[in-house]
Amino acid sequence: MAILERHDTGAVAHLRMTAPERLNALSDEMLAALQFEFDALKQDQTIRAVILSGAGKAFCAGHDLKQMTAGRQAEDGGKAYFADLFDRCTRMMLSIRDLPQPVIAQVHGIATAAGCQLVASCDLAVAAAGTRFGVNGVNIGLFCSTPMVALSRNIARKHAFEMLTTGAFIDAEEARARGLINRVVAPEALEAETAELAQTIAAKLSAAVRIGKRAFYDQIEMPVTEAYAYAGQVMVENMLYRDTEEGIAAFLDKRPPSWQQ
Amino acid sequence: MAILERHDTGAVAHLRMTAPERLNALSDEMLAALQFEFDALKQDQTIRAVILSGAGKAFCAGHDLKQMTAGRQAEDGGKAYFADLFDRCTRMMLSIRDLPQPVIAQVHGIATAAGCQLVASCDLAVAAAGTRFGVNGVNIGLFCSTPMVALSRNIARKHAFEMLTTGAFIDAEEARARGLINRVVAPEALEAETAELAQTIAAKLSAAVRIGKRAFYDQIEMPVTEAYAYAGQVMVENMLYRDTEEGIAAFLDKRPPSWQQ
Amino acid sequence: MAILERHDTGAVAHLRMTAPERLNALSDEMLAALQFEFDALKQDQTIRAVILSGAGKAFCAGHDLKQMTAGRQAEDGGKAYFADLFDRCTRMMLSIRDLPQPVIAQVHGIATAAGCQLVASCDLAVAAAGTRFGVNGVNIGLFCSTPMVALSRNIARKHAFEMLTTGAFIDAEEARARGLINRVVAPEALEAETAELAQTIAAKLSAAVRIGKRAFYDQIEMPVTEAYAYAGQVMVENMLYRDTEEGIAAFLDKRPPSWQQ
Repeated sequence: MAILERHDTGAVAHLRMTAPERLNALSDEMLAALQFEFDALKQDQTIRAVILSGAGKAFCAGHDLKQMTAGRQAEDGGKAYFADLFDRCTRMMLSIRDLPQPVIAQVHGIATAAGCQLVASCDLAVAAAGTRFGVNGVNIGLFCSTPMVALSRNIARKHAFEMLTTGAFIDAEEARARGLINRVVAPEALEAETAELAQTIAAKLSAAVRIGKRAFYDQIEMPVTEAYAYAGQVMVENMLYRDTEEGIAAFLDKRPPSWQQ
Repeated sequence: MAILERHDTGAVAHLRMTAPERLNALSDEMLAALQFEFDALKQDQTIRAVILSGAGKAFCAGHDLKQMTAGRQAEDGGKAYFADLFDRCTRMMLSIRDLPQPVIAQVHGIATAAGCQLVASCDLAVAAAGTRFGVNGVNIGLFCSTPMVALSRNIARKHAFEMLTTGAFIDAEEARARGLINRVVAPEALEAETAELAQTIAAKLSAAVRIGKRAFYDQIEMPVTEAYAYAGQVMVENMLYRDTEEGIAAFLDKRPPSWQQ
Repeated sequence: MAILERHDTGAVAHLRMTAPERLNALSDEMLAALQFEFDALKQDQTIRAVILSGAGKAFCAGHDLKQMTAGRQAEDGGKAYFADLFDRCTRMMLSIRDLPQPVIAQVHGIATAAGCQLVASCDLAVAAAGTRFGVNGVNIGLFCSTPMVALSRNIARKHAFEMLTTGAFIDAEEARARGLINRVVAPEALEAETAELAQTIAAKLSAAVRIGKRAFYDQIEMPVTEAYAYAGQVMVENMLYRDTEEGIAAFLDKRPPSWQQ
């Protein structure tokens, strides 16, 4: 049985981590499977939005500690393996940002350590009420330094610092108020609400969403004047799409657009 | 009739967009009128705070889509016009930041696309309960890339990303909680409350507010050690103002300051 | 009587500003005393968390205005003294960030101007209900430019700008919602709750907290790809600590870790 399943519904791809016995840990195999699917999605012009969820009682509990411990058997005590592991993990996390399609985390149960990083790395996140979020590696002596990179770009500094140094969990409502996730929904509505959000985005003009998503992450790291110079060019390019011309014309005519996309 | 009116009350200038039939769209004429007034205010030593509002049922609904569509008639399909348009729009938005006086958006109805950018670009914003905010260009196939530059510097990433890719609106309370605006007031109190905020700022030592506003935006883009080196110099300069010496002396004497400003 | 007292409880150092008659103002003497203690703590391997509080009715009311006014008697009107003062103040504030141990502000009464900066500069903050926070220098003609550096890295722009230009205070609940502090507790529980938070952190693996705290502030100013490259190295180093190996082994064995730290 695969540890990651992909089911497409129209223009929405749903990736489901299916290693519930390990709380969907980011093992070497899971990282490779996620990377493989993200690489495939990057080239997939038919997909306009992606959902990422986990089977079983948790979304994702972070790295696979058993596998990491096994890695210590190497002559260097695991150093080369760990370096490679975190490189692969980072590459996977950044692939989400680099994917042209928006990626929505559909979260339930717990999202801890690199599992919380996975939520922070997605463009959007919907969580079931009752979900708990933590970067609790500090409890076992492993500070969540890589998860911190994503987390500290989502929520305020002091709130991130508290989670990192105490290992304490926050609930879904707090995660939403702080900016880690977008919506909290009833557990029984999680799948439907996430699918609806994905469908909403998939119904937009794909080319506009793609150019916009790329611009979002590129401009956010620039000084404001540089960001504007870049975003202005993006707007001009976007204005010249035939479908955008049709979208604006349809709006002025008060009719739905007829897009060729 | 002018599309932008300026009325001064003491040291407060109130700019009012008066193209309600177009929901105060940022047409070429409106952009030019705003730029003209901001350029004039920059030199105006008598004005210490600025209010920006819109007449009619909306604050501002963004770019003028009819005018933009007309621009497509050019030989290049509008490319040069659009590039120039976004340049002018960016220049106007950045003029608010570069203005020595704080600028307060007085918002009601809706603030959409570049209208939402206008709110995000002001230093402060007061909104009537019931006001809705959106960067909904994606609905017509035009991703709000330039509004995104201002929006993503006001609110958390995931919340900004959701607004940009779904086109969904948020209400005034949510806008306040997220950091897009400062206050939500009853619609009938909007004008009075905004005026009071402007008067509060106008009553401060103008030279201190000016040096402080400039420092605010300059330091925020610097690494923290550089920011401190710069802010320290600003503090020294501020300490040497005669009116600041009087302000501190008055405070120590428990009397109101007698400023020459 | 000393103006700053240090009492250690196990691995937690508690620094208490004891100049209540001056609302614990950051006088030359107080700055020197804080710098001295932070320098000592930096070398102190036995301390794993630090609490900073103030005696009397306020946490800290900012700079010592009487002393600053006296500085004006110099030939240059105080210019050199002020430059040196802000340099020393900045060095003290940045020492908190550079300290290997997390520093928790235990706040009550008021935290104003550089006192509010002190809260913003600590890694964590717990406040008694009823505490008020302000950067109100603008009221006496001295814009809080150096406090702004810390404040604007804690809370949203428009909220920071409002505090800086109006001098208005916010209460503890608002400070928590915005990200300036972590927790609001009943006044009678302030000391105990802060101590418990400090103990929680002190019970973690010290080496992991130290490497994590440094990485937190270093990576936050980097572009995301650079931040990940750096954080990945930190994770590898952390994985190779003997105590981390034990922490992970203990977790997998479902027993408490036996750390040598």
